[in-house]
Amino acid sequence: MIQKYLPFSDAEFQRRLAKTRHAMEKAGLDAMFVTDPSNQNWLTGYDGWSFYVHQGVIVLPDADPIWWGRNQDANGGLRTVWMTDDRVIGYPDNYVQSTDRHPMQDLSERLKGMGLDSARIGVEMDNYYFSAKAFTVMQTEMPNATLVDATALVNWQRAIKSDEELAFIRKAAAISEKIVDGLLERVEPGVPKNEVVAEIFRDGIRGTDGNWGDYPAIVPLLPSGSDAAAPHLTWDGRDFAEGEATFFEISGCYRRYHAPLCRTLFLGKPPQFLLDAERALVEGLEAGLDAARAGNRACDIANALAAPLERAGIERGARCGYPIGLSYPPDWGERTISLRAEDETVLEPGMTFHFMPGLWMSDWGLEITESILIKENGAAETFCNRPRKMFIKD
Amino acid sequence: MIQKYLPFSDAEFQRRLAKTRHAMEKAGLDAMFVTDPSNQNWLTGYDGWSFYVHQGVIVLPDADPIWWGRNQDANGGLRTVWMTDDRVIGYPDNYVQSTDRHPMQDLSERLKGMGLDSARIGVEMDNYYFSAKAFTVMQTEMPNATLVDATALVNWQRAIKSDEELAFIRKAAAISEKIVDGLLERVEPGVPKNEVVAEIFRDGIRGTDGNWGDYPAIVPLLPSGSDAAAPHLTWDGRDFAEGEATFFEISGCYRRYHAPLCRTLFLGKPPQFLLDAERALVEGLEAGLDAARAGNRACDIANALAAPLERAGIERGARCGYPIGLSYPPDWGERTISLRAEDETVLEPGMTFHFMPGLWMSDWGLEITESILIKENGAAETFCNRPRKMFIKD
Repeated sequence: MIQKYLPFSDAEFQRRLAKTRHAMEKAGLDAMFVTDPSNQNWLTGYDGWSFYVHQGVIVLPDADPIWWGRNQDANGGLRTVWMTDDRVIGYPDNYVQSTDRHPMQDLSERLKGMGLDSARIGVEMDNYYFSAKAFTVMQTEMPNATLVDATALVNWQRAIKSDEELAFIRKAAAISEKIVDGLLERVEPGVPKNEVVAEIFRDGIRGTDGNWGDYPAIVPLLPSGSDAAAPHLTWDGRDFAEGEATFFEISGCYRRYHAPLCRTLFLGKPPQFLLDAERALVEGLEAGLDAARAGNRACDIANALAAPLERAGIERGARCGYPIGLSYPPDWGERTISLRAEDETVLEPGMTFHFMPGLWMSDWGLEITESILIKENGAAETFCNRPRKMFIKD
Repeated sequence: MIQKYLPFSDAEFQRRLAKTRHAMEKAGLDAMFVTDPSNQNWLTGYDGWSFYVHQGVIVLPDADPIWWGRNQDANGGLRTVWMTDDRVIGYPDNYVQSTDRHPMQDLSERLKGMGLDSARIGVEMDNYYFSAKAFTVMQTEMPNATLVDATALVNWQRAIKSDEELAFIRKAAAISEKIVDGLLERVEPGVPKNEVVAEIFRDGIRGTDGNWGDYPAIVPLLPSGSDAAAPHLTWDGRDFAEGEATFFEISGCYRRYHAPLCRTLFLGKPPQFLLDAERALVEGLEAGLDAARAGNRACDIANALAAPLERAGIERGARCGYPIGLSYPPDWGERTISLRAEDETVLEPGMTFHFMPGLWMSDWGLEITESILIKENGAAETFCNRPRKMFIKD
């Protein structure tokens, strides 16, 4: 008998499944093949670093989901999913990275065995880990089936968080605060970047108050000076330097749930243009938080942010946030709503976002951000509670 | 003027490009669109955690490669690629995770602008980050072009490492040794797993002897006892326990190059079946290392390993290794050769593998592995130098 350590109650998993089935019915789907690791986990509890091979969850309208993957990873499935053992199936190892056979041949046979030969099957066409080849092999093997683009169908069901999920995000947020406190303390001119990153990981994985830290879906990002123009540079062994701003984009992670938090630190005396940008950005953040209310739309947050920035002559050009929660590499966003002028999604209580108005100009950058919860009433709540400013060590 | 810190010489990048162009010519390709982040880095130097949005490198037979990605990441491109600034192009932010437009529309327009409307264009159909949707959008936007499956075309060019690359793998290997030494020291009954993982990350990123550590493409894997049946479980906050074997699969990383190393630690007095398995596995490893010679085939390693295991009544059923080097999440393998009975690829000097004969049985597991280099003469060299055994703390 294998002992399982499921993160959520049975009722929570049933709630998710019911919601997903309802969306499938609306989309006219007979079944769905879910490849996004975050969706797999959300639906079944499956957890493991095995998403580098083909695997997924088959969702059916009238029977429990099936986790399908590589034989050796079925052992992980048996240990992490809520379904009974017969709902975990593996394919032979010689399908892995073979030029003679493809895992989707095995999957297709199984789907046909379930009577789905000519079914309408949802697939995540533009989600991670459903490759172009996976699609064309399924098309070839199941010529009578209709593969329907169900990108983000499950992701949308994840938008409003349950109380159990919010409790996890709050634990992640406490870890995020600890990480930011630590780096603000440690960064000094002459300290190598990788030394600070080593402590960021250590703080994050040690966790807080008995809440162990999981790996975040994105590694720490911390470009300095002119390099801060580029939001996604990682680190190297060079020293932090006097006269440079560095932004830190980090997230604590608790059982795959995230609460990203970014702060900027200037070493020395910041130039006036950066102080001006900071003032406009903080004003924009506060306007955005005030606009982040149930009943308002995603674009209302973006527009509220944009006004003070425009007055300061700053044009961002990028979206200013995305939903957060459960995630796996390479992204801690949920890939549904985008906080930007053209997104009119209505905000609902329980939605969670990383409100992320990074400034990435041609030769400088500034990040001050908040992970937020849309409340029943009033402005958004921030998960973290740290001064909303550019920190300065002079 | 942006300062660049390229990891390799210009000659090294030109060698890679020439090799890739030769392979493209043999495959009858007019151009190639490369999405695998490892291939992008190998060809151009591009480095950044931005592979969660659509991006890639356009390889042409007669002009320098072009790095193409999201506008904000073009700033990262300008800082990390060897090509001139005009070879870095961005697409607008509102293409990101939009339901109205897709980044491949922008890419297709650009390819058509280069006169490639009816070209034969190689795409990585079964590599990470080229989604099914990316493929179908390109098909729609470029109806006269032929999209040719060029999965692993670039990966194959990476199989034989240059001296510059081997120097990086050796630095990664020194970090791997440091990580394993540290965890063997720290793991004791009653120590929480996440505390040990925190130190693994810290050791790995601090690096050794002035060689800063980068993030590995896979996080540490360390299941214990019955859970060691599942190779890809990550950690939680439970304690290490007396009477359990834990395997540790880790890798140091230096500038994206890896040298994975796995060792198993038993706390207490190991049962006889585990000692027997260890003996057979070490014998198999040594036979495999001896078979890992230039001129032999990949399957020769697998078959040499299998013989002593079979004598001990152990049937693995999984491949026992894969090429390693430069990589990004979610995998540190190169996804070309597999060390298994059906792979007859001839081994050449300069090839590097993770010889990885993990044993994952129904309720126990054991990993003792080596990252290896195929030499001009004689048996393989191991990059790390640590006792090839199951460690015991009694």
